[in-house]
Amino acid sequence: MKPSLYFDYAAATPIDPAVASAMQPYFTAKFFNPSATYLAAQQVKKDLNAARARIAGWLGAWPSEIVFTAGGTEANNLAIHGVLRQFPGSNVVASAIEHESVLQPASQHAHKKAPVTADSIVDVAKLRVLIDDQTVLVSVMYANNEVGSVQPIRQLGLALQEIRRGRRQRGVELPIYLHTDACQAAAYLDLHTARLGVDLLTLNAGKIYGPKQCGALFVSRQVRLQPDVVGGGQERNLRSGTENVAGAIGLAMALDLVQTRRHEEGERLRRLQKLFIGELQKNLPEAVVNGTLKTRLPNNVHITLPGQDNERLLMALDEAGVLCAAGSACSASSDEPSHVLHAMGLSDGQARSSLRFTMGRQTDEAAVHQAVAALVRAARS
Amino acid sequence: MKPSLYFDYAAATPIDPAVASAMQPYFTAKFFNPSATYLAAQQVKKDLNAARARIAGWLGAWPSEIVFTAGGTEANNLAIHGVLRQFPGSNVVASAIEHESVLQPASQHAHKKAPVTADSIVDVAKLRVLIDDQTVLVSVMYANNEVGSVQPIRQLGLALQEIRRGRRQRGVELPIYLHTDACQAAAYLDLHTARLGVDLLTLNAGKIYGPKQCGALFVSRQVRLQPDVVGGGQERNLRSGTENVAGAIGLAMALDLVQTRRHEEGERLRRLQKLFIGELQKNLPEAVVNGTLKTRLPNNVHITLPGQDNERLLMALDEAGVLCAAGSACSASSDEPSHVLHAMGLSDGQARSSLRFTMGRQTDEAAVHQAVAALVRAARS
Repeated sequence: MKPSLYFDYAAATPIDPAVASAMQPYFTAKFFNPSATYLAAQQVKKDLNAARARIAGWLGAWPSEIVFTAGGTEANNLAIHGVLRQFPGSNVVASAIEHESVLQPASQHAHKKAPVTADSIVDVAKLRVLIDDQTVLVSVMYANNEVGSVQPIRQLGLALQEIRRGRRQRGVELPIYLHTDACQAAAYLDLHTARLGVDLLTLNAGKIYGPKQCGALFVSRQVRLQPDVVGGGQERNLRSGTENVAGAIGLAMALDLVQTRRHEEGERLRRLQKLFIGELQKNLPEAVVNGTLKTRLPNNVHITLPGQDNERLLMALDEAGVLCAAGSACSASSDEPSHVLHAMGLSDGQARSSLRFTMGRQTDEAAVHQAVAALVRAARS
Repeated sequence: MKPSLYFDYAAATPIDPAVASAMQPYFTAKFFNPSATYLAAQQVKKDLNAARARIAGWLGAWPSEIVFTAGGTEANNLAIHGVLRQFPGSNVVASAIEHESVLQPASQHAHKKAPVTADSIVDVAKLRVLIDDQTVLVSVMYANNEVGSVQPIRQLGLALQEIRRGRRQRGVELPIYLHTDACQAAAYLDLHTARLGVDLLTLNAGKIYGPKQCGALFVSRQVRLQPDVVGGGQERNLRSGTENVAGAIGLAMALDLVQTRRHEEGERLRRLQKLFIGELQKNLPEAVVNGTLKTRLPNNVHITLPGQDNERLLMALDEAGVLCAAGSACSASSDEPSHVLHAMGLSDGQARSSLRFTMGRQTDEAAVHQAVAALVRAARS
């Protein structure tokens, strides 16, 4: 493995050594079930709740508003099903570029898809038109996992405030909640839920140098949510199952680390992103960068190379030690071209000529130069 | 902590050092997303599937019949919801002593509860009477988590064979599946699904010296199941979310270890169980052992001490360094007396005078003597 040429941080991140160390004691000495009554177990429960409080801190939330889940997919499912099942007859509006773990649960209920611009930004005005008096939930991701476009969540939050006011005046009692999937955003953007105006927010440790399948759903106090996984009643009856204490501790530590360093690391990656795009323009001028460059995660470079077959390129790059992606890893196994690129107006052919490079902690200038050089060789061969 | 006086192995087990070592590489060097296309990720996918195959081996199953889940609770939810949602209008028969993670999902569908004897064994004849032509699923745990009673799964499997034959003859097309929650049984009993005659079986690493919230559901090929958590389509579309590779590796290793040693360790614990009960009879003759002694997990001693308050005893024992439980840890936080003890015919008062001691790898004769001595002191004080 050549970790410096890893360009798929949006798919998976290695666990930070500090995170791994923090988790370790909960595998062995502190293995107790947090629901047990003896003091040693109660101490574990305290540690679990301290992790909860640290996560809540970054979100400007109450600890009781954090529900631990087994990863982002489950949290997204819980947000969608949990709200929609609570309000029968209601509908959900989701953007067309959401992750499948939002789109698929949404498709099990009455739902509408909000379009995005060619730059892959949700059009707030067009989304508003889709909201009717049966809409109980709007779900728009904070930053897109394929092209890295950062969505206008604050603006959506304000729009929903207005809609709530209108409903109150007209005596419509149905609430309307805003959910955002922040799995990709959490390493680089502000997560303060009140500033964002969101009622539900999804976190995923596996994308921020924490353990896989450890996530959380922020559920604002006023949200009425039905649980998905039921049983022993853990997580305030919203998500049953003996708690993954090590995982929760890992998520809290991972979030601490990325949020503490996010400005510095964001700027560093922004420079690498500019370098990457600049090198492409110089050496591979036919490459088209997809998605906005204005509001974009600093670690994402997504391109179309007209006429090229991305599967061939991926193999050539893999041989050269450059690990990147054709799209979301989650749907990499399927042969369907990306729904995100479609929603942006790209053709099947363009989607099949597209590559995603996502950078992270171990990416440096040398890696960017090597990756672009390898890409040029692959494209010219 | 005095680990030798830990008597709550049914609530949680420490991770075996060999399991922790096996998981370690997947946190760091092998952190890749198994759905990614490059070879390094494909190698991780191979490792994941090798873990799947090892688990399948113990179950006499095909690797494709193993669905990784975030623990036993999720697997039980998936078994119940997954089958019942697939066959609208159908019902489920579950024993009255199932874990809440079976009873609660079952309660969301048409369901019937099968009674148990005073010894906490499901009465197969009485259960059969509850099965009608709309019954699609029977769910009976392999061994009970509170009193350790081992249920007649093979007999149930044979009964369902007969019912299937009857349905075929009468042209009833609805299938009928047998699900067993083997979370507590996996360390001590045979898991061969064909010998047991089960179609669905739940495993949980957190109870067998593996990581918490790592589990699996065996889903026999002929079972038609609807997914619960949807999204990227991992686990053959039955359970989406970036795979918890380290957890799956940990579950496989933990299962290998307990199944390899199960006869030897079972016999060792059986001797300790006899010692425990013998010492009780000698020193605390008013103690009543609950549940069958014939077909019982070797690590469980569950008693009622008439007139005693189990909360007071738990505190006194905790102070003496003996960590045990009043019931299932999962419902320890609630004040409800155990539904398992109720189903066996115990009164609220008897349930509130009951204690569960569950033993494991670090329990030895000295620990048993110390625990009984501490219990005697607590009961006499």
